[in-house]
Parts: sequence; C-alpha cells; structure tokens
Amino acid sequence: GNGVSAAKKPCVEQSVDLSYAERAKLPNVHPLASKLLKIMEEKQSNLCVSADVTSSEELLQLADSLGPSICVLKTHVDILKDYTAAFSQKLQALAEKHNFLIFEDRKFADIGNTVKHQYEGGLYQISSWSHIVNAHAVPGPGVVKGLSAVGKPLGRGCLLIAQMSSQGSLATGEYTKAVLQMAEEQSDFVFGFICGSKISKKPEFIHMSPGVQMQAGGDVLGQQYSTPEEVLCDKGSDVIIVGRGILEAPDRLEAAESYRKAGWEAYTKKLGRADQ
Amino acid sequence: GNGVSAAKKPCVEQSVDLSYAERAKLPNVHPLASKLLKIMEEKQSNLCVSADVTSSEELLQLADSLGPSICVLKTHVDILKDYTAAFSQKLQALAEKHNFLIFEDRKFADIGNTVKHQYEGGLYQISSWSHIVNAHAVPGPGVVKGLSAVGKPLGRGCLLIAQMSSQGSLATGEYTKAVLQMAEEQSDFVFGFICGSKISKKPEFIHMSPGVQMQAGGDVLGQQYSTPEEVLCDKGSDVIIVGRGILEAPDRLEAAESYRKAGWEAYTKKLGRADQ
Repeated sequence: GNGVSAAKKPCVEQSVDLSYAERAKLPNVHPLASKLLKIMEEKQSNLCVSADVTSSEELLQLADSLGPSICVLKTHVDILKDYTAAFSQKLQALAEKHNFLIFEDRKFADIGNTVKHQYEGGLYQISSWSHIVNAHAVPGPGVVKGLSAVGKPLGRGCLLIAQMSSQGSLATGEYTKAVLQMAEEQSDFVFGFICGSKISKKPEFIHMSPGVQMQAGGDVLGQQYSTPEEVLCDKGSDVIIVGRGILEAPDRLEAAESYRKAGWEAYTKKLGRADQ
Repeated sequence: GNGVSAAKKPCVEQSVDLSYAERAKLPNVHPLASKLLKIMEEKQSNLCVSADVTSSEELLQLADSLGPSICVLKTHVDILKDYTAAFSQKLQALAEKHNFLIFEDRKFADIGNTVKHQYEGGLYQISSWSHIVNAHAVPGPGVVKGLSAVGKPLGRGCLLIAQMSSQGSLATGEYTKAVLQMAEEQSDFVFGFICGSKISKKPEFIHMSPGVQMQAGGDVLGQQYSTPEEVLCDKGSDVIIVGRGILEAPDRLEAAESYRKAGWEAYTKKLGRADQ
C-alpha cells in the first residue's frame, strides 16, 4: 500500500451475485451443491453448525433441536467416545427429518490409495452416511481421485480446504491457487471450498467458512474468529460454520437462530434485495 | 540448469554423518528419537513397515512375524474393520516383545482445539497406545500445540509432513521450509519429518521416507516409488517406510528381511564404514 486506503464497499454494490435459488439451477452445478443451495433458500439458512461434542446422544439431541435452523451439520465422529453404526443411522434419519446435509469434517490428507480405505472402511464407514467430506490438497490430486472413486458413485461431494482460520496457516497464496485449480479439474466430485473468503468466481462452487462468531477474537491454540457479516458480506462466502459460538451459549437453540438470522440478513444485504 | 549436470556423489563421501548410536546420545535429542535410534542400531534396522491391512487379526500377525525385522510399525487404525481397545493393548504388547515403536499415521491436519480431541479421544484414543503420530503443517503451529498438549506429558513424539511421495504434492519449496521452521520451534514434541529427502542438517531430527519399493514406479492414484538405496544414500533419509513392497510379496517375512538388509547396507555405505 502507498497510503491510499480503499473505501469499504457497501454490500449492496455486489448485487450482480446470483441468489442461492438461481445457482441451484445452473446447468453445470454439482447435484449435491444444487441440493444444498435449495435447502439454503428453502430454510433461509446459510448456517452450518459444527457439532463438536464427544457424546453420540448429545450430538443427536443437537441435530434434532438445531436441525430446523441449519443447512449443514458438521461432525467430527472421531471425537465421539461412543460412536456406533446405529448412531450414524439415527443421524441420517434426523438429516432427512429436518432437511439438512451431513458433513464429516475428516480433512482427508493422505495418498489416494489410503484415503479410499479411510473414507469407505474402518469403524466409521464415512461414505455410507456423510453427504459431504473435505480434503486437504497437500497430497496432490490423488487424494481427490481416491475419495471420488468411493464417493462419486454414491452421489457424495467433496470440499477442498483452500484456506484455514487458524493463525499461521500455510494455505495461502500459491497453495490456495493450486487448490482452486485442483477443484476445477475434478469438479465432478469437488463442489466447493473451505475458505475464509470467496476464491472462485464460478457460482457453481460453494464457499464455506469456519471460525465464525458474533464477536471477532480467537482461542489459545491459534483459532481466529470473524463475524457472519464479515464472512458473507465482505468476504463473499456462502455458508458460515459456527462451533463454540453456539455450543458454548447458555441457550444453543436461541444462539443458532440468531446466527441463522444474522447469516440470512447478510446474504439478502449482499444480494441487494432486502426482500426478507 | 544450464546443461552442466552435477556428477552423482558416491555415498562414501558423506562419511561425516553420525551413526544412529552417536545421534541417540546427542544432548538435545528428543527422548523418543533417542529410543528409536537405539532400536535402529540394536536391531540393525531402519525399516518401518506400513501395515495397511483391514483386519485386526492380520495386523497383529504381521506385527508378530515382522516385529524382529523392523524399528517402527506404521498403522492406519481407521481402516481396520474391527478395531477394539483390546487390539491396541495386544499391539502394545507386541511392540514391547519385539522392541519396535508404533506410529499411527493419522496425518492430523486440523486446528489445535480439534486435534487435541482427535488424538486423545474418540474410539481410538490414539495417544494412549501410539508412540509416534504425524501432522500436516498446513493449519499452522496450532496443530502441533494441540497435539503436544496431549502427547508430551505421555512421552509421545510427532513427525511433521514436510514432503509427500504422491504426484503433484503441494508440500514443496516454501511450504517445506515453513514445516522445518515449525519443527525447530516446537522440537520438544516434534522430533522429525516425513519427507522424500533430508531437509534438516540437525542430527537430532529423524527423517522418515514413504513410497519405498525395490523397484521405482508408481500406482494409478499418484503414488511414486523410490528404492531404499536412493532414499537412504542419495537423499539422506534415515528410515524407509515400505508398504505394498512387503504386504503384496508372496512371502512377507522374506520381503521384510530383504528390505531391512538393503536399508542397513545403504546406511553403512553412507557412513563410509562398511563394518557390518
């Protein structure tokens, strides 16, 4: 910078953006992205809750109570102390009941031959119940090829991790560009990104952003927070991922509803169609 | 390059290298690295077998039969269809019996707060039985801080993934340099690297290299193979990680012994002390 600071653009200027409903109908949109965009429009929600609890029962209760407010439920089943196959069936039933997608945040990051087994097999059999998974691009395109061999025939989809909300992340600059290219080359399985800000202009791709709280800040292990308005309006992302902002609230449902509303308002503001 | 190709140096010229036994005694060596180096010297083995099987019983048989030939057994417990806590106890007993270390190749790659739970909790409780784990540096230093909070009090250690053997990996150049720095800053828990070639001159760090087979080549999902001689002698690594070269051999024990011998010969050749 040479001292000339760019004025912050009001969201309303970005009104060339397509609505979720319009993007859902694009000819080249991935079927799972289309389904997600329809859910978002229908439920007026761009909220993904990060259900980082360690008890299956608590996770199911969370899914049932917050289900109406969310478009995606993000899980880490490998932190549950009591995971069973029956749990994953119950979770699928709740996803049907409340019309949300399940996203196991596994962050696959190995060579193709290994992630195939990790995705399909083991105790968790992730591919059998999780609509969405994600992967790091660091192993190269083989990681997506391996996952796709398992997930594509099942109608699953993958998000590539293009940026991270943690301090000192190496997913920046050239790395992020390489992720974008990898996604474009395998867009029959990759339908979007985990990122802090919009990195692709293609409206077929979904941008989902972690590290969201009502107040900016961080934790002692390097996590850094942005607000829903910043993420959706200023950064151009599509989905806010909220964990501790909801889980640590005295009333989780009330907190989820306030995030859903804040997210939806930021979206309508961005569209320049305050029609809600 | 400008057409002048560097002549390949014979291994014997690198005879300034310290022996495993000498490195085990360095004042700043991580206790787990010291233990590993002593095992390597004692068993005349720099072979880590990648036990990528999907049955607990088969993994235990493998650990028992190949145990005498290896310094490290690398696992992916999340591809076992029948993992139980009893299995991990049996595996620990075999590690004691045959004097090898267990390395769960989990490739942790999330923010600090999440990897803490993934390492300690869930069905696998990895920190309770695996001497070594590894992590991707892409989330930034928080991933190591989170793992260290769990593993350091237990005497565990971590390898950072500095390079990968898969085609098109993004762990190159500046990324690899950042991994090196991250390791140096947290060397009370990080004791080495997963890499294709030696990246740190500090003899306290252990370099372990995957993608090793007797014949160079690859698989259809981007894996690329190097030989034990290339990895240990030319690339300066310390430990060869062999998976399919042993698992897919008609006689696994015979194959493991031939890798152990090839690895040990390359090591003694590199030391310039063909005293074995």
